[in-house]
Amino acid sequence: MRPVLTLMAAEIFNANCREALPAAVAVEIFHNFSLVHDDIMDDAPLRRGNQTVHEKWDLNTGILSGDAMLILAYQYFEQYEPITFKALAKLFSKTALEVCEGQQWDVDFEARTDVSLPEYLKMIEYKTAVLVGAAMKMGAIVAKATEENCDSIYNFGLNLGIAFQLQDDYLDAFGDPQTFGKQVGGDIIENKKTYLYLKALEQGSADSKAGLLKWFAAHPEDNTDKISAVKGIFIATGADVATQDAIEAYTLKAFDTLERMDIDLEKKQLLKKFGQNLMQRKV
Amino acid sequence: MRPVLTLMAAEIFNANCREALPAAVAVEIFHNFSLVHDDIMDDAPLRRGNQTVHEKWDLNTGILSGDAMLILAYQYFEQYEPITFKALAKLFSKTALEVCEGQQWDVDFEARTDVSLPEYLKMIEYKTAVLVGAAMKMGAIVAKATEENCDSIYNFGLNLGIAFQLQDDYLDAFGDPQTFGKQVGGDIIENKKTYLYLKALEQGSADSKAGLLKWFAAHPEDNTDKISAVKGIFIATGADVATQDAIEAYTLKAFDTLERMDIDLEKKQLLKKFGQNLMQRKV
Repeated sequence: MRPVLTLMAAEIFNANCREALPAAVAVEIFHNFSLVHDDIMDDAPLRRGNQTVHEKWDLNTGILSGDAMLILAYQYFEQYEPITFKALAKLFSKTALEVCEGQQWDVDFEARTDVSLPEYLKMIEYKTAVLVGAAMKMGAIVAKATEENCDSIYNFGLNLGIAFQLQDDYLDAFGDPQTFGKQVGGDIIENKKTYLYLKALEQGSADSKAGLLKWFAAHPEDNTDKISAVKGIFIATGADVATQDAIEAYTLKAFDTLERMDIDLEKKQLLKKFGQNLMQRKV
Repeated sequence: MRPVLTLMAAEIFNANCREALPAAVAVEIFHNFSLVHDDIMDDAPLRRGNQTVHEKWDLNTGILSGDAMLILAYQYFEQYEPITFKALAKLFSKTALEVCEGQQWDVDFEARTDVSLPEYLKMIEYKTAVLVGAAMKMGAIVAKATEENCDSIYNFGLNLGIAFQLQDDYLDAFGDPQTFGKQVGGDIIENKKTYLYLKALEQGSADSKAGLLKWFAAHPEDNTDKISAVKGIFIATGADVATQDAIEAYTLKAFDTLERMDIDLEKKQLLKKFGQNLMQRKV
């Protein structure tokens, strides 16, 4: 999806989307670099149904191919003249460092028991949302949009990215098993500290809190009871509603930035429609 | 040493060396990025007498800090205006990819028994010499030297880098234990396929070849006999002289590029003196 956002943003600011292709490719290669290195860190055997790079070859190949992909991403920007090249590479470096920081937090959070909601929001902002914002801003940079427009589309993407990630947390527990791509309850099985979990701990009673902590310390063979009990706690504590509220708040924050954007009304409606579709997804 | 080469090259082409500081820092950070990731791949416990990053913290921290350092290196170039920024980042990306390729070859060579001398030379060129060439060219770019001068100083550094690496191979076996920084014979103990080893296999008799292969299959507790026997084979096969010849040939090739450089004679003599000192080192 990320590279398409770069192309779409270029068109929004009246450039031919073909001009944004090298930047879009850079975004996609960077995203795949982060997956290759993340899969090593998470010791993941599979990615998109195939063996991960370090599993299929070895650790060295995983580390080195990741490194090479990060460099390759920078090389794609070389197709632009110096001023655009510098603007793209600068945004890219800032974003890439943030994504690395977000990944480190994600790793650290696994071992911590005192993760706060603001910390969690910062983690998903850095680990995933900044790249959505940057992907869109790159399209705007290629289209030589004004600085104000570049910043507005960045904030549009950033807030939509946070909303998207929170929706991921929500759907993992409450998605329709018929249409949800992954196993429903996957985060619960893995004891992941999602927004639902942190919110339930924050606003639940002492009993709910104790129950949740008990279930998240357990690794049963059959997870049916665990999933249904934890979902029950999410509902009883109002964590489900609070998560939906947060999704809506970040989506509206994204739409707010559209107001400040200096583009045709029709283009604004296009971006809004895109955001609405994304947030109504069931998968 | 690498960052100093960047500063020196800037002065050679009449810039103030302070202007080249951000580029020099980028080169040094990149070099340290490659050490952090290489140490993971080599499973090295120590670096410069201290614990390696992945040993002191963990694998995740080693991978992520390396990634962050690679990105940080690019960020240092942001202090230059767009045209210089692009020239530096472009050279940097090309060089960084080559260094990754060189490292992959080095890893592959460990498991291979049919490594040829041209392949070995290509490996050390990519793994170490290109960064020496690039470090010097970056100084020239910052000083806005002509394209011809930029290419000449690159080739000067590249060939001197190869000579330096071959000298490393030579000194590891034949260096003076009193002045050589590392353990003499370290490559022999580790069965490393150095220039000396490959040359001895290439031009030795069937007997010398068999002897060398036998020693390189052995892992004795006390390496005294092994080191002295292997050094004996290096001398008997003329591999020692051939390595010194190669060091001299690459050094002369480096000095040849000075002839084509459009700078004052005095500057040429300075570069030549620098090269001579480097090649007369005993450590």
